[in-house]
Amino acid sequence: MTPRLEARASSECWHKDAASVGKRMCACDSREARLRGPAGAMAAEKLAGYRDRIRRELDQVVDFWLKHSHDKLYSGFFTCLDQDGKVYDELKYVWLQGRQVWMYCRLYRTMERFHRDEILEAAKSGGEFLRRFAWTPSAGSPGKCAFCLTREGQPVKVQRTIFSECFYVMAMDELARVTGDHDMQVKFTSVIEVLSTLTVSVLPFRVLQTSERVLQVHAESVMDQLVRWVRVDPAGLGRPQLPGSPPVNSLAEPMMLLCLVEQLAEGRTDVTDKYREVGSWCVQQILQHVQRDGTAILESVSKEGKELPGCQGRLQNPGHALEAGWFLLQYAVQHGDEELQRTAVDKFMKIPFQTGWDQEHGGILYFLDVDGHCPTQLEWSMKLWWPHCEALVAFLMAYSQSREPALLDLFSQVYDYTFSHFPDTEHGEWFGYLSRQGSVELDFKGGPFKGFFHVPRCLYMCERLLDGLLEASCDA
Amino acid sequence: MTPRLEARASSECWHKDAASVGKRMCACDSREARLRGPAGAMAAEKLAGYRDRIRRELDQVVDFWLKHSHDKLYSGFFTCLDQDGKVYDELKYVWLQGRQVWMYCRLYRTMERFHRDEILEAAKSGGEFLRRFAWTPSAGSPGKCAFCLTREGQPVKVQRTIFSECFYVMAMDELARVTGDHDMQVKFTSVIEVLSTLTVSVLPFRVLQTSERVLQVHAESVMDQLVRWVRVDPAGLGRPQLPGSPPVNSLAEPMMLLCLVEQLAEGRTDVTDKYREVGSWCVQQILQHVQRDGTAILESVSKEGKELPGCQGRLQNPGHALEAGWFLLQYAVQHGDEELQRTAVDKFMKIPFQTGWDQEHGGILYFLDVDGHCPTQLEWSMKLWWPHCEALVAFLMAYSQSREPALLDLFSQVYDYTFSHFPDTEHGEWFGYLSRQGSVELDFKGGPFKGFFHVPRCLYMCERLLDGLLEASCDA
Repeated sequence: MTPRLEARASSECWHKDAASVGKRMCACDSREARLRGPAGAMAAEKLAGYRDRIRRELDQVVDFWLKHSHDKLYSGFFTCLDQDGKVYDELKYVWLQGRQVWMYCRLYRTMERFHRDEILEAAKSGGEFLRRFAWTPSAGSPGKCAFCLTREGQPVKVQRTIFSECFYVMAMDELARVTGDHDMQVKFTSVIEVLSTLTVSVLPFRVLQTSERVLQVHAESVMDQLVRWVRVDPAGLGRPQLPGSPPVNSLAEPMMLLCLVEQLAEGRTDVTDKYREVGSWCVQQILQHVQRDGTAILESVSKEGKELPGCQGRLQNPGHALEAGWFLLQYAVQHGDEELQRTAVDKFMKIPFQTGWDQEHGGILYFLDVDGHCPTQLEWSMKLWWPHCEALVAFLMAYSQSREPALLDLFSQVYDYTFSHFPDTEHGEWFGYLSRQGSVELDFKGGPFKGFFHVPRCLYMCERLLDGLLEASCDA
Repeated sequence: MTPRLEARASSECWHKDAASVGKRMCACDSREARLRGPAGAMAAEKLAGYRDRIRRELDQVVDFWLKHSHDKLYSGFFTCLDQDGKVYDELKYVWLQGRQVWMYCRLYRTMERFHRDEILEAAKSGGEFLRRFAWTPSAGSPGKCAFCLTREGQPVKVQRTIFSECFYVMAMDELARVTGDHDMQVKFTSVIEVLSTLTVSVLPFRVLQTSERVLQVHAESVMDQLVRWVRVDPAGLGRPQLPGSPPVNSLAEPMMLLCLVEQLAEGRTDVTDKYREVGSWCVQQILQHVQRDGTAILESVSKEGKELPGCQGRLQNPGHALEAGWFLLQYAVQHGDEELQRTAVDKFMKIPFQTGWDQEHGGILYFLDVDGHCPTQLEWSMKLWWPHCEALVAFLMAYSQSREPALLDLFSQVYDYTFSHFPDTEHGEWFGYLSRQGSVELDFKGGPFKGFFHVPRCLYMCERLLDGLLEASCDA
């Protein structure tokens, strides 16, 4: 989930790189489509309005988490934050720890106004907490990252999925980029010493080296294990292989691996080469989710790309498909693959939006059944913050790339719903969970699955895309 | 979850036992509290109205499942049934298979109008499916029951909890009672032969005997394993023991075991003696959930009966507490324990109802946080069918026992909400999942967690309690 195009800058060059990303996405060859003349001026004004609101919102959201989420005693982040930021549970969810480290580093590295010591220090402290406590001893080799930890770092729960490890990789790689690995080396070496008192097999270290690349090498080592789990043998995840449950291609897995390929490969030729085939495989796996003669994106398909029986096979998760859409679009632009660009927009953006938009109450539904049955998920009709975040990024990226006005209209439609329903004007940050009718059903700002990630990533990417669009319109 | 008092009748004596249960619950010593005089006649008329509606509803619900849920090809039951009864998923959830076998047997054994061959045959067919397919091979010994199976019986998922096995025990014990074990013997022996081709450790058979008591012995053998998992060593469940997650006393476990003790012991002196201590232990474990100086029932406490930190420790599930309430009341009446009777009603019925009743929209909320934080469960504010079922049973049982008018008022309050919101007047059976405002959010009749159980058990028990009350009022 690392937008490669969104953050090419390294820590020493953010000041030169600002706004270049959105501009780079303006790959449209049609000069007519540019923002020129009176209509262009109006459009530019509209875009500037979005950009300014989004920029203010990002500042407020960052402030909220800087103020409320840091555990100054044990390090790491509290993510269970009440409406006004008070901690209502001290558990530390590894997904969210990793995401917060990643987001802090990314902001620090690529946006001038966030290149601040307090953000860097928070990221390093969170990274250290993760590296000390995320890994749990395991009967087999290699170990597993916990799903959640106590405040002090004791493991509470281990999921039989790949995602804790995925967000761990995102965090470590981005942390390596902002620190240049140098100042994390001493701490990291001591962590290895602590962990080596446990079973040797606890950690999937490929190389226990103390070079300056130790963090990056560590991230790649975990990545290689993830690829083995997904492509070769999932036994290490701890899920029993049952005859009634053949392996499934679940959209989340190739999406997540593609995101990690982009993260690890950014600006590194050797790593790009290493993971080229993995990236291509991920894209093919994602494309298998286009089903029903191209009219639907299904969340789970067989490993052979066929529709699965029952509810599982018919499930649609529009927000997830939209997120896959902008992952694919980004990849397609980088690889100059025009057909994939069209597929990303037509299949993974327009279709899920048509499917998921609630014509009666507005907003994007959480789950749907492709045959119109009622989903069995109790929350199917709720409006969650993150599908709206993904839709905003998807449509703005697609518009930046093609300048198709209908895509900007879709962005505007989602923007209007999102900004009139999710932000909390009283205490800042966004509510996460609305009823179908749009009222706030769960009023906390952070919880087991909502941390410092989807909202700031969306705002960050949209701000940069809008900067690029506006700069391009001035140039035109 | 087997109401011992509700069904003392054995298969050969249902005709003598009808309505005796409710009457037996009328243990109030105060003659003034009986239904006499003009007020008594009014009350009797009201009760008769409830009884008639409930009786009709039970007939309709039984018809719905007889008509739509039977898999005539592979045996077992479909439980994923659309609003009109069509199967929308063929998966077979073991909890629901066991519950349906139990409910069919119980109706067949204790209610004259359900003493029908088609019900007995369906129960036996479902029991055979369970016994053939529920158990999965396990690395350790003993095996585990699957959580769900394909239509053909292949295991799809195994949960790391005790509940599949619990409902298996309920089903097998009740099946033994209706068949007298005799006519199941041949089938069962062949099942053992099939399974013995797998690892010997697959099945927790204590004795692979072919006596007429084979089903009952099998049920007890699984029960003994359940008690070991809960009280001695949970390792066989497959949950990793993690240092940040000490063992928890979760209300469901002692409730479920108490229910099984009642089921197995009914009418059997030797089994009563065998499980006497387990029953008493379960009651003590349930009572540990009375917290905050007796003002709240918390869903999870430590093994030492202390409040746990965070959301987990503060969680309240009013429907579950109400269910525990009538389990305890039943046990207390059987054991002549007046203090426990008061605790059951005051702590496990009145408090959860006060906590859980939605003053604004009516109905019982699904989850609450004892300190008033927003629960993290997305469905916390929904109105589910089963807490209302438990509340109906609880308050009617408590009223039958004490004749305290306030308890009948509470029954009436829940009755009015329930019967005006959950039954589907178009296709029969009940909707299961309403929004906070009371509109139907999920329109299916059966799903992964809603089968032929809570609705018919509630209607069955209420009908019998009302029969008893009405008979007592005639006697007065």
